[in-house]
Amino acid sequence: MPHIQLPEGLQGIRAAMAFRPETAGPLNQLAEILLHAPNSLAPGERELIATYVSTLNDCYFCQTVHGAIAAAHLNDDEDLVLRVKTDFQSSDISEKLKALLVIAGKVQKGGKRVTTVDVEDARKAGATDIEIHDAVLIAAAFCMYNRYVDGLATWQPHDEELYRQRGKKTAREGYVVMSQEYLSQH
Amino acid sequence: MPHIQLPEGLQGIRAAMAFRPETAGPLNQLAEILLHAPNSLAPGERELIATYVSTLNDCYFCQTVHGAIAAAHLNDDEDLVLRVKTDFQSSDISEKLKALLVIAGKVQKGGKRVTTVDVEDARKAGATDIEIHDAVLIAAAFCMYNRYVDGLATWQPHDEELYRQRGKKTAREGYVVMSQEYLSQH
Repeated sequence: MPHIQLPEGLQGIRAAMAFRPETAGPLNQLAEILLHAPNSLAPGERELIATYVSTLNDCYFCQTVHGAIAAAHLNDDEDLVLRVKTDFQSSDISEKLKALLVIAGKVQKGGKRVTTVDVEDARKAGATDIEIHDAVLIAAAFCMYNRYVDGLATWQPHDEELYRQRGKKTAREGYVVMSQEYLSQH
Repeated sequence: MPHIQLPEGLQGIRAAMAFRPETAGPLNQLAEILLHAPNSLAPGERELIATYVSTLNDCYFCQTVHGAIAAAHLNDDEDLVLRVKTDFQSSDISEKLKALLVIAGKVQKGGKRVTTVDVEDARKAGATDIEIHDAVLIAAAFCMYNRYVDGLATWQPHDEELYRQRGKKTAREGYVVMSQEYLSQH
């Protein structure tokens, strides 16, 4: 049961956002820019970073919904998402994304863990400064979203099909539409 | 030296925000709503939560600048800020704020650490659901800001007077003005 009186019937962060639409606005705008807006990193790659960090933080809701969004962007390749979550170094992704996932994994433990060598490795694999910046901020942001979702003990039903459908919708429409839904419903 | 080519002469998160004004917008809006907008928790109380979490995350820039903003809100009581950072249970703050700091400290370690008893204690001390929500989200958000600032190895000069002046300005003007500065300068 959630720690505070959240609206019923909404999963994970959706309940928290409906409870406090004022903060839902910037939280969704940040996700929109980092994960869905045009970028040299594909949306599927950025969602994989979000999924990986959420897995490290053991947040069921975020790793499942962002894993579903990643899969929706990546030709429904749920096996690839699972491989990235469990052992990305052996998965079929670019060397650049692997180097960015190394950085993201360090950020999850603490910002100071990121080393000059980690960043040089990412540059050698072709990452730009903006891509390195965005990998750091996506990882940092999911250290927030994950704690927000679990710190309030939100409702997180274990129903893969529900997350799959939500993933397809968010992959298509992005995060700002989600924010507008709350404003119209509450 | 920062890991990527950030604008020179700006400290901490300010350099990262000037580098990527698109994400600076929602990051500052979130800080404005959580820390500066009208709320039943005073701005000084909310800045103490931000300062405490930034101290736990060992982020020099964030603990120093938010400590300075907190002091500016609290009659320049820098001793109180230091006591909250080192041993808040023995500091001269309300029992409600102590209970919210306990929750914030749990969120810093991981969202699942927050217990029903922690939340009940906060309620008994007079905290509302919105105050509990905001304490959780402030703590979660500073787990992001701290990692963003340190994950990029931003420039963080050790000059207390600089932070004191910045603290007074932000306490007065809030965070949205800061965001507009970047847009006009860059």
